[in-house]
Amino acid sequence: MANSNAAQLPAVGVIGLGSMGYGVAASLLRAGFQVHAFDVRRETLDRFAAAGGIAAESPAALAARVRIVIILVVNAAQTDAVLFGENGAAGALPAGAVVISSATVAPEFAVQLGARLTAMGLHNIDAPVSGGAVKAASGELSVMSAGDPAAFELCQPVFDAIAAKLYRLGDEPGQGSTVKMINQLLAGVHIAASAEAMALGIKAGADPAALYEVISNSAGSSWMFQNRVPHILDGDYTPHSAVNIFIKDLGIVLDSARKESFPLPLTATAHQMFLSAAAAGHGAEDDAAVIKIFPGITLPERKQP
Amino acid sequence: MANSNAAQLPAVGVIGLGSMGYGVAASLLRAGFQVHAFDVRRETLDRFAAAGGIAAESPAALAARVRIVIILVVNAAQTDAVLFGENGAAGALPAGAVVISSATVAPEFAVQLGARLTAMGLHNIDAPVSGGAVKAASGELSVMSAGDPAAFELCQPVFDAIAAKLYRLGDEPGQGSTVKMINQLLAGVHIAASAEAMALGIKAGADPAALYEVISNSAGSSWMFQNRVPHILDGDYTPHSAVNIFIKDLGIVLDSARKESFPLPLTATAHQMFLSAAAAGHGAEDDAAVIKIFPGITLPERKQP
Repeated sequence: MANSNAAQLPAVGVIGLGSMGYGVAASLLRAGFQVHAFDVRRETLDRFAAAGGIAAESPAALAARVRIVIILVVNAAQTDAVLFGENGAAGALPAGAVVISSATVAPEFAVQLGARLTAMGLHNIDAPVSGGAVKAASGELSVMSAGDPAAFELCQPVFDAIAAKLYRLGDEPGQGSTVKMINQLLAGVHIAASAEAMALGIKAGADPAALYEVISNSAGSSWMFQNRVPHILDGDYTPHSAVNIFIKDLGIVLDSARKESFPLPLTATAHQMFLSAAAAGHGAEDDAAVIKIFPGITLPERKQP
Repeated sequence: MANSNAAQLPAVGVIGLGSMGYGVAASLLRAGFQVHAFDVRRETLDRFAAAGGIAAESPAALAARVRIVIILVVNAAQTDAVLFGENGAAGALPAGAVVISSATVAPEFAVQLGARLTAMGLHNIDAPVSGGAVKAASGELSVMSAGDPAAFELCQPVFDAIAAKLYRLGDEPGQGSTVKMINQLLAGVHIAASAEAMALGIKAGADPAALYEVISNSAGSSWMFQNRVPHILDGDYTPHSAVNIFIKDLGIVLDSARKESFPLPLTATAHQMFLSAAAAGHGAEDDAAVIKIFPGITLPERKQP
């Protein structure tokens, strides 16, 4: 059933099988695509092959077999490496192929990447994603995208398979990454603010669970407050998204604004809070661990399973 | 019909007929209560009398006629004045009467107020409210409350008439104001963060309306982002809640934490941003006007009606 339209569907490549990339690749398989994948971790690649995907030996080997490739690596440096480094994908893609670049990168990088790929006869869709590993796995990501309308037409079935919301923000790469950057600014500030608020509440003797319940239903709530404070209440800092990720993402925001001489007082403060958490040894923990920078309070302990 | 149970309902006093107090008083009238009211603005009092309420000449005059009084003035100083100042309510209330104190005040003040009223043979419910003028008018406020269970029993029909959610947070005054303080911390930081994010987005060339649409549906969203950014998009800074209110409320948060030697990096930064807005002449504008502190960007202009 799932493969009934496979003849009309283009072959797709996915580079980067982390928590987001694996979910996207699995969603494409489920929708009937032939999915080629590359990841530096051999065991992840083997797992994907066992699930029905096709493992590639390198980005270049993958690129020779597809007309659409989605890059879901961690940052700009890795995006650059898998496209233009040794055995990179860009040189091996057929003319007119589309590169969907989905790592969180500076808007400036997104603009330059688009120009570079265009000069090689390729299309680029600037397409950072939001929603986390669960939405990636269920094919319900939000995609903040910008690029050539003709490329979008070719990729429509791909977006149908991986996204619940496809925001089209412009006809040139850049605006997708700009909106994603603003989203990360708010997400990072809201996580740090949630930690600061819960820390003060605990200091003032409030019951943390009652505080969470009331604020979640009041004007002080945020998506991040509702999502991250339960980690604090459970005393469980298993990383869904780590402190170090927001050091990186808020760093991108601050660097971009600084190039334009633009001040971001709250973002800079939140960045320092995440840096304090990392300096104290919590960089690899869940980002809610930023609450550990507040001294003199007793946080809820982890319940025994 | 609305008055069919009036014989069983206690007479209630409302002191302070601002946007919150007037809505509460009107909700009580609608529920069939006999409602006495006092406000320093004579014309507001006349309007309430014309709507079916009973105007009092002073807090003391009001207090002599009721067993429950709700204080909905602006701050701790006004709460103190209407209760203990010249012609204040406290000395005129019958023994066993309940004072529901709903201004946003420091938790320390709420604790002291409870002790003072108890020493006079009165009950006190610490009961700050959230929800804004619209929810006050429709009788759907959230109430963050703490106080003597016997007092709650007497006041249940009052809360039924004015609140959609009554959070009971403790048996002594203080915890209601603590939770409200934490809510205001987050609300203030989120308004300032919304402004910072929209300012950077505009600087980076994003379409403000598209940015609002995407972020509202993404992990960067907050209650305040969804509520206040439309004011920025409309270029309409008619005050629903003014910049000066958050200078006051975040000031309460910072003062309370400072007494405990507790650091609040984001709250302090947001407070400075609201102070910058007020120093530039925007203190009486809507709190979304904090975005005007960001130089070098062109904000959406007000549409002509």
